[in-house]
Amino acid sequence: MAEEYRLRVIGRVESALRRREDAPKQHGDGAPDASVVIDPPFADAASDIRPGDRIVLLTWLHLSDRDVLRVHPRGDESRPLTGVFSTRSPARPNPVGLHHVEVLSVEPGRLHVRGLEAVDGTPVVDVKPDR
Amino acid sequence: MAEEYRLRVIGRVESALRRREDAPKQHGDGAPDASVVIDPPFADAASDIRPGDRIVLLTWLHLSDRDVLRVHPRGDESRPLTGVFSTRSPARPNPVGLHHVEVLSVEPGRLHVRGLEAVDGTPVVDVKPDR
Repeated sequence: MAEEYRLRVIGRVESALRRREDAPKQHGDGAPDASVVIDPPFADAASDIRPGDRIVLLTWLHLSDRDVLRVHPRGDESRPLTGVFSTRSPARPNPVGLHHVEVLSVEPGRLHVRGLEAVDGTPVVDVKPDR
Repeated sequence: MAEEYRLRVIGRVESALRRREDAPKQHGDGAPDASVVIDPPFADAASDIRPGDRIVLLTWLHLSDRDVLRVHPRGDESRPLTGVFSTRSPARPNPVGLHHVEVLSVEPGRLHVRGLEAVDGTPVVDVKPDR
C-alpha cells in the first residue's frame, strides 16, 4: 500500500454549473461566477480575504477516475495518449484542481469569485494568494 | 468528523536542502536545484515531461502544523495575525505546497528541476503543466 495523507474538506463550491460535461475544459472558456462556502471550523483561516484579491483555489475533483495514468488531451482521440502529469485532465492519481480566480465579494463564510470552472458541490481543500 | 479524502504519494523530492529552517520563505530567494523521483507505479503519468517544460509540483508539506488557522506572515511577529488562506505559510489545514519550476533534464523515473524550495524527502502528490 502506498503512503497516503488525509486531506480535509475546508469548504465547497456553490455554482450554477451542475454537470461535469458542462464544465469548460480550459481557462477562459466562459466558466460562471461562483461561491466558495467555507466550513465554519476553518472560517478564521479565510478572515483576511478581501474583494479584489487574486487567489488560487485547490479543489478535490471528486468525480474523477484516479486510476488513469495516460489520456487523450482534452478528450480528443485524434491526439496521442499523454501522461496525465503533462495534462490538466481531472483524471489523475490525485485529482486536485487548481483554479486562479479573483474575489468579487466576501460575506461571512462565503467568497464570491469570478469564472470558476468547477461543478456545484466540488470540495475545496485549500485557498492561497495567487503569485 | 469532517469529510476527508486520501492523497497518494506519487513521488518524493531529493534535495541538498535538509532542514525546514533553511528553506527560503519566498520565491526567488535562492532555492537549490533538486530532483523529483517518481514512484514506479506512477511512471507512465510522467512519461511525456520533457526538458524545458514549466511545471507545477504539488507537494505535501509533511512537517507542518495542520491546526493553525492564523499566522504572523513570514514568521514576523511585528505583522498582525493573518488568516492562513491569505498567506503562503506551510502551517494550514491541508499543507499542500505549490512550486512553479522548470524541468532541466529527465531520466527514467526522475525529473531534475530548477530552484525547488522543498526539503529533502518532501512527498510529491501531483505534477501539472504550468499555465
